[in-house]
Amino acid sequence: MCELLGMSANVPTDIVFSFTGLMQRGGRTGPHRDGWGIGFYEGRGLRLFQDPQASADSEVARLVQTYPIKSTAVIGHIRQANVGAVSLANTHPFVRELWGRNWCFAHNGQLKGFTPASGFYQPVGDTDSEAAFCDLLNRLRSRFDSAVEPDAILPVLVAACEEYRALGVFNCLLSNGDWLFSYCSTKLAHITRRAPFGPATLKDADLTVDFHAETTPDDVVSVIATEPLTDNENWQLYQPGEWILWRDGEVVAQG
Amino acid sequence: MCELLGMSANVPTDIVFSFTGLMQRGGRTGPHRDGWGIGFYEGRGLRLFQDPQASADSEVARLVQTYPIKSTAVIGHIRQANVGAVSLANTHPFVRELWGRNWCFAHNGQLKGFTPASGFYQPVGDTDSEAAFCDLLNRLRSRFDSAVEPDAILPVLVAACEEYRALGVFNCLLSNGDWLFSYCSTKLAHITRRAPFGPATLKDADLTVDFHAETTPDDVVSVIATEPLTDNENWQLYQPGEWILWRDGEVVAQG
Repeated sequence: MCELLGMSANVPTDIVFSFTGLMQRGGRTGPHRDGWGIGFYEGRGLRLFQDPQASADSEVARLVQTYPIKSTAVIGHIRQANVGAVSLANTHPFVRELWGRNWCFAHNGQLKGFTPASGFYQPVGDTDSEAAFCDLLNRLRSRFDSAVEPDAILPVLVAACEEYRALGVFNCLLSNGDWLFSYCSTKLAHITRRAPFGPATLKDADLTVDFHAETTPDDVVSVIATEPLTDNENWQLYQPGEWILWRDGEVVAQG
Repeated sequence: MCELLGMSANVPTDIVFSFTGLMQRGGRTGPHRDGWGIGFYEGRGLRLFQDPQASADSEVARLVQTYPIKSTAVIGHIRQANVGAVSLANTHPFVRELWGRNWCFAHNGQLKGFTPASGFYQPVGDTDSEAAFCDLLNRLRSRFDSAVEPDAILPVLVAACEEYRALGVFNCLLSNGDWLFSYCSTKLAHITRRAPFGPATLKDADLTVDFHAETTPDDVVSVIATEPLTDNENWQLYQPGEWILWRDGEVVAQG
């Protein structure tokens, strides 16, 4: 299994605090030693850091923890391999361009007997996760000729996720930089931080941040994670089959 | 204008030495302050580092210089913007998946009045360079249904490069991880290092490497750059209109 991390915010926000917690689970407080990756949107660009080695030992992960990259949409992942070798090509998140935007995807779970129809997008590696991502984008592309609002694509996304979920476990995060879609098959949690901000303490590292000192009163920052990352805040658990579309830190649709 | 850096090798080789030279030209010994990027193939995976700021001041560039990533195919670029704002989305190299491989592209030059036909791949940013890359891949995809050997695609690539060159300046590097294609419109140089290896001294930084101590007798490593990076070696200059296809450090086709 793996762990997911997502962020949606209404102002460019750094995710060093949450990332630091997650990275400990990549070989120190958790068993996810088979690679990690994180993608930060900066405007229409996407900055991607990845390593097929344990995040707790990764030089690149140390850089990301000390270099506060600010973004309004982030997708991160730490991997414990089940399908596909440990390699860079099998390291989440995966990225493809669709309709002139970078789409970024990470998955927690596994799919049994998944044999998607071939289409335009093809996996580079050999994970079921990347195959599902390609299948998702192939469905969108075959359904719509050009970019449409998320309202239009949500039914396609949700129907696809339900099909995948029937084959095993399918928790996922997907973003095009504008919005962030999250789907829970078994396990996913979220928290929205807004004024009045307080302190938060990581479960996996000896680190506390006082968000009051780091934010302005109008900031809205939501974090999505496989398991709550802090132990003094009130995380909400997704229900199996529940999905949420986030934009600017807020829930804009759910079901 | 910009500067290009490419490497093709028969064993995974680090490019720290050449990268260190190029990075000085991004704000220290050269004027290319508007971003830099480098893509390293690791198997079928591609590790991409980019920054829209000057490489001479970049934390990420410092990491790449101290962290010897070994690869058999590398494409790097430092940017002095002419078309398109300074932003991550406009930072080379650009990447797209085609036929289940990561294709990576960087361009030096500019194209006047370039209006490519629309196709499957669309630019995310607003550079003429990314538009040309998308057009190249759209041509390949419309011509071939699935992956073919480089022999088959070379005529399509060369014809496209000649069309682009008629619109301005088009020096470029393109790789799918297996081979590296280089096209010279105005300025490009290359060097192949093989046994007996000797010392090399950077033009842009006070750094000498004795490749004899770093290599084995069977290593073959070719470096392609806009301008020679060392001042004690015999770089070969491409002629305008000349192209070379590199694989495992060797020239496998040229014209």
